[in-house]
This record gives sequence, structure tokens and C-alpha cells, in this order.
Amino acid sequence: MSVKSVSFQVKTSGKTDILDITNKVQNEVFASGIPDGTVTIFIPGSTAGVTTIEYESGVVNDLIKTIEKLAPAGIHYEHDSRWGDGNGYSHVRAALLGASLSVPFNKSDLKLGTWQQIVVLDFDNRPRSRNILIQIVGD
Amino acid sequence: MSVKSVSFQVKTSGKTDILDITNKVQNEVFASGIPDGTVTIFIPGSTAGVTTIEYESGVVNDLIKTIEKLAPAGIHYEHDSRWGDGNGYSHVRAALLGASLSVPFNKSDLKLGTWQQIVVLDFDNRPRSRNILIQIVGD
Amino acid sequence: MSVKSVSFQVKTSGKTDILDITNKVQNEVFASGIPDGTVTIFIPGSTAGVTTIEYESGVVNDLIKTIEKLAPAGIHYEHDSRWGDGNGYSHVRAALLGASLSVPFNKSDLKLGTWQQIVVLDFDNRPRSRNILIQIVGD
Repeated sequence: MSVKSVSFQVKTSGKTDILDITNKVQNEVFASGIPDGTVTIFIPGSTAGVTTIEYESGVVNDLIKTIEKLAPAGIHYEHDSRWGDGNGYSHVRAALLGASLSVPFNKSDLKLGTWQQIVVLDFDNRPRSRNILIQIVGD
Repeated sequence: MSVKSVSFQVKTSGKTDILDITNKVQNEVFASGIPDGTVTIFIPGSTAGVTTIEYESGVVNDLIKTIEKLAPAGIHYEHDSRWGDGNGYSHVRAALLGASLSVPFNKSDLKLGTWQQIVVLDFDNRPRSRNILIQIVGD
Repeated sequence: MSVKSVSFQVKTSGKTDILDITNKVQNEVFASGIPDGTVTIFIPGSTAGVTTIEYESGVVNDLIKTIEKLAPAGIHYEHDSRWGDGNGYSHVRAALLGASLSVPFNKSDLKLGTWQQIVVLDFDNRPRSRNILIQIVGD
């Protein structure tokens, strides 16, 4: 049984930018040499999240529009009154979507569905460079 | 330390069908022979999710109604314009609810609350046979 | 490779009380003596959830207001008609937010972002004493 801790950077445009990181995660699992286990994808930050979706631009836009309705950018947030960085909505969206996802793998292959990709959602109100943590636990 | 990878099928009616899979997960953990660890329940697919709820029909209906409000079936989705399968809302709901859940177990017993069940939510717009992945990591 | 299963209690005021449990989780990871791995925080109960957020009162209030809009307390829930405990909205909120979070650690240090805290959200309609499960798997 082993643990491998790796990470990689992605550049985002912010403003609910949604990026497909499936290949990067798959590459790290393969490089770990661990055949079977669970990989946890974790976002260290409070204005981004992680989930899975079919990564085609139509439904990615649909998800963005839905999130915009659930926690709109244009309403009052107490966070903005206190801190002045104008990204209260980003924090709320991140807390709703969640910072961790766990995916099983076998023979170093992620057990995703055929049309299912792992995505990072950057809700901040400006471009960011994001560090994505990949924790691989298996045997 | 060991990893056991199993799966089982469930038949759903789609349209936000919510199914209690607690007993099936518990049976797999028991059958693994691993006393202590974490089980990851993962949905390989982009139109279904997993969470926990008290599995009684009243609150299951309440959850369905809330999800219908958050990502309504009857509005325009770009996904549907491009792909024509009419399940854009299913993808959005699945991305919001999430594809993974991790539950601790000890003495091969899931550490759920008394009134807490593990459920699969099938958001697709037609009946499906779903493969549910159960990844057990422990010692 | 080892598994350590611990838990701690928190007292909440209910009604979407949001509590920072980061230090408690960090202390348990340190006390486990396991240097590297993944810690799963799990809420055994169907009216509470777990996520991460920047724990400052402005954005915590913003999250509470958003959740109140997504699953309002003042509308009809079937659960309440059947069970009479008036917390149907609590169950729905808990199912949406989710019961598990997985966080990587290295050198016994949680790999959270600088402004990112682990929080329990108690959605029940009365004060509760909550048992929080901490499952540490690593090497």
C-alpha cells in the first residue's frame, strides 16, 4: 500500500472558468505506479471547486448559467462590504460545489464514465494560477 | 492494507429517480473482509449523482422538488440544441450533486447515522441500468 | 499503511449553524502519527453537511442566505406533513451539501488553502450535539 502526493498548476480566466483536468489526473495516477486505489482531487483555495461533467461547451455553459442563478454575481454579499475584493459570490459558489472529489482506479485507469470528465471550476473574479492536489492511495 | 474494487447494477426509471443503495454497499464492505477503512461510492456517468438522505418518501419527494427548481427540466439548455437528447438538465443536476461519496467503516460496519441512507440519484430522462462502483480501501 | 478512526463532538445551535472544525481535524491527523494520506470527514446524520469556506462572518452569512433561498424554511415539505418535526428543509439542505469531504495531508499537515477552513453545517431546526467522524488512511 502506498501514498503518492503530487500536484499540478492550471491557469484559469476566473469568472466560473471550467477546465477539463482528466488527462492530467490520469497521467499522475499512471506515473504513480500504483495499480488499484482511490485518487482524491482537492482544490486548496476557497473560490474554486471540483466536480465531473460531460465536457462539451453546450452543457458547460448550461452549468455556468445555473450556478449564476443559484448564487448571482450582481447581488449584495456581506463579504464584499468587509473585504472589498468583490468576490463574495465566488466563495459561496465554491462552498456549494465542494473542494474534493474521489475517483476509483484499477490497473492505473480512472474508472470514469465514457462521457464523464473531471473539471475544476474557478469562481474567482479574476484570472488565477491554481494548484491542484492529487492524493493517490492504493496498493 | 488492501484495496477491493467491486460494482453492482441498479435499474432506475430516470427523471430524478432516487434509490437507496445502503444495503448493497454494506454487503460489499462486509464481503471484502476489510475491517476498517473508507469506502468510496462512485457513479461512472454524467447524468447521475450520489448523496445521503433519510430514505422516506416524503423528504425524497421534497429533494426532487427542490432539484427541479434549481435546474428545471422545462427551460432552454444549450446541450439540447447541439445533441438533441433533451437531457441537458440531467447533466447540470449531476454536476451539482456530485459523483462521489466517501463513508468510513469499522468492524466492516458503515458508520452512517441511524436515519441516514446512501442514495443514487438518476437524473437522465429515461430508464437506465446504472453501474455503481464501490472502492474499499482499508486495513 | 494504517487506518485511524476517531471522532469528536461539537455543540451547535442548529438553524444552519456553521462551525469551523479545522483545528480539531488537524489535531486528530497529527495525533494519528500517520504522515501522509487522506482524511475523510463524515457527518453521521441526515440534517447536517460538511464543506470548506473562508471562515469569516461576512461570507458565512452570505452562504447561509444563499442556502435559505435554495431550500427555504418557510415553504411546504412533505416530510413535515408526515413526521411533524418541521425540519424537512434541513434534510433537503443536507442532501444538497453532502456528508463527506476528503482532504490530503503530508507530514501530518492538512493541505488546505491559506484562507480555507473545514466547516460543519448543522441544518436542523434545534440545537444539537454532533458527532463528527474522522477517518485517516495513509502511510
